[in-house]
Amino acid sequence: MTIKDIARECGVSVSTVSRVLNNHPDVSEAVRRKVLSAVEERGYIPNNSARDLVRSRSDAVGVVVRGTGNLFFSAMIKTISRQLEQRGYTMVLHFLDSDADEVKAGAILEREKKLRGLIFLGGRFDYTSAELALVGVPYVCCSYTNVFGSLDEGEYSSVSIDDHETARRAVEYLIRLGHRRIAALVPSVDDHSISELRYDGYLSALIDSGLEPDPALLEETGGCFEMPETYEGMCRLLGRTRDFTALFVLSDTTAIAAMKALEDHGLHVPEDVSVIAIDGLNVSEYVTPTLTTMVQPAEEMGRESVRILAEMLETGQTRHVRLEATLREGASVRSV
Amino acid sequence: MTIKDIARECGVSVSTVSRVLNNHPDVSEAVRRKVLSAVEERGYIPNNSARDLVRSRSDAVGVVVRGTGNLFFSAMIKTISRQLEQRGYTMVLHFLDSDADEVKAGAILEREKKLRGLIFLGGRFDYTSAELALVGVPYVCCSYTNVFGSLDEGEYSSVSIDDHETARRAVEYLIRLGHRRIAALVPSVDDHSISELRYDGYLSALIDSGLEPDPALLEETGGCFEMPETYEGMCRLLGRTRDFTALFVLSDTTAIAAMKALEDHGLHVPEDVSVIAIDGLNVSEYVTPTLTTMVQPAEEMGRESVRILAEMLETGQTRHVRLEATLREGASVRSV
Repeated sequence: MTIKDIARECGVSVSTVSRVLNNHPDVSEAVRRKVLSAVEERGYIPNNSARDLVRSRSDAVGVVVRGTGNLFFSAMIKTISRQLEQRGYTMVLHFLDSDADEVKAGAILEREKKLRGLIFLGGRFDYTSAELALVGVPYVCCSYTNVFGSLDEGEYSSVSIDDHETARRAVEYLIRLGHRRIAALVPSVDDHSISELRYDGYLSALIDSGLEPDPALLEETGGCFEMPETYEGMCRLLGRTRDFTALFVLSDTTAIAAMKALEDHGLHVPEDVSVIAIDGLNVSEYVTPTLTTMVQPAEEMGRESVRILAEMLETGQTRHVRLEATLREGASVRSV
Repeated sequence: MTIKDIARECGVSVSTVSRVLNNHPDVSEAVRRKVLSAVEERGYIPNNSARDLVRSRSDAVGVVVRGTGNLFFSAMIKTISRQLEQRGYTMVLHFLDSDADEVKAGAILEREKKLRGLIFLGGRFDYTSAELALVGVPYVCCSYTNVFGSLDEGEYSSVSIDDHETARRAVEYLIRLGHRRIAALVPSVDDHSISELRYDGYLSALIDSGLEPDPALLEETGGCFEMPETYEGMCRLLGRTRDFTALFVLSDTTAIAAMKALEDHGLHVPEDVSVIAIDGLNVSEYVTPTLTTMVQPAEEMGRESVRILAEMLETGQTRHVRLEATLREGASVRSV
């Protein structure tokens, strides 16, 4: 089956078939439909090798993912994959171990796969310009920013929510509902990453409302938003004190693990403890009780990352986009 | 920073540095450590372009994923990605819409990305040899087989659990605990895919135990294991009858959605209804009640798929691997 067979069958020229396949506008709708239905029927697959030979540059874009247990990134990878495909790029996906250096991993990937650009999903972002000199292609930091680093805004692009502000809003919501003793479960308070930013947001909310942060109500879990570590961290916190009415957790899956630990200790959510998180996964709408969470616009973040990277590749222009997280009220929070 | 700088710094020859970087065995451990620590310290990245030029064939392997909401595949993609990387392949990931034709999508991807091989994660597998002739490279069907098709075993490879048998064992477990009225929630009873196979396993278990399958206890949800469709299907079933003590659901996430529908109708799991599923996701250990489920060995399935594909590329040898699912008892099932 060749393009000539399709042209013969439809009674049009080969160049007309080619124009249809390449989405040129100068073809009548009737001819367009006829050609596409013949292509569909015969299972004809256009041979792009000639076009590929002309295109000398690689079309590969690396996507480096931190935190393999992170379901939030799973959703985003799908969007990024589709968006890259639509723009003619090939996604080269690389999963990092929690403690790996994403800049070095990205730089190695860049050389091995001859990447044109990189998207980092999550990262410890206190790198300096010198360290980042390893990366020789444009890159977008998705879901985090270089807030701790010494990078100039013009050196990179980013797409994220305002982590500090989103955490502050979540905790303020608990305070508005009457909670005063609010515990927090965080991977790390000083990891130079979103964990630190969100913890700072929690502190700001307390302090701005005249509440004294109590060190006994804070538990660091370590790791990278994994459920087992979070469950254990919650158990340690409960072993120390039960003198709190609400809990702030940094992600949906870790909130689900924390709720499990609460239930296993005979504490009911939200009757005994209210729980709020950040992410907005689908599965959080189906756990019992439904999780109250600040929804990150995952699809939009993925779409924007690809759009901005494509723009950087064409024009060299960097961009920093902040998207809004929105509260999704579930049944895991009550007023006291 | 070049290989010469590293050699000079370590006081060894360039070829010694090269041997260390290429994992040759004929280097002393002391020299090896010295070189690697210099490489690490200086952030030196080996330039593989010469090697790449010699390698004339593409190293791309396509992974076509059916069902974008399927968390089971999310876990497997990570394993497959790492295994492909370790063997020097590049993973080209493609997510299908539920109703898309995976063979055509795979064939298009093969030509566009010059793939050397394909791994299909999930699929409607009643294609014929003629239809599959579109695919011009070796491929592995992961998590399903061509049981409905007319393919010869030598034409393709597969890695999966025995879906019929796993479903039968799950339902037999419920029967052993005294359940007689066992409802089932399935995407489709005749989709020529794992949904049909698992439904047949449910029927076998009932019939082999002398129980009459009751059509009122079966609900088809349509779709591809999505949570909203499953939740609605469960509501329809509950609108018709509550005369059952147990429920068999085909995947973990859909079981979580079904448990939510039960709770929302005032039915408690497992006091009023026992629930069992197939998959074994991490998150299922943290929902309340913990889900009882048949655990598919996801990592092993991913590893085996890559191993078998690599073998096919080298020797042309096809293989069919059946792995065992194991029961993980949670708190969602009780005896009656």
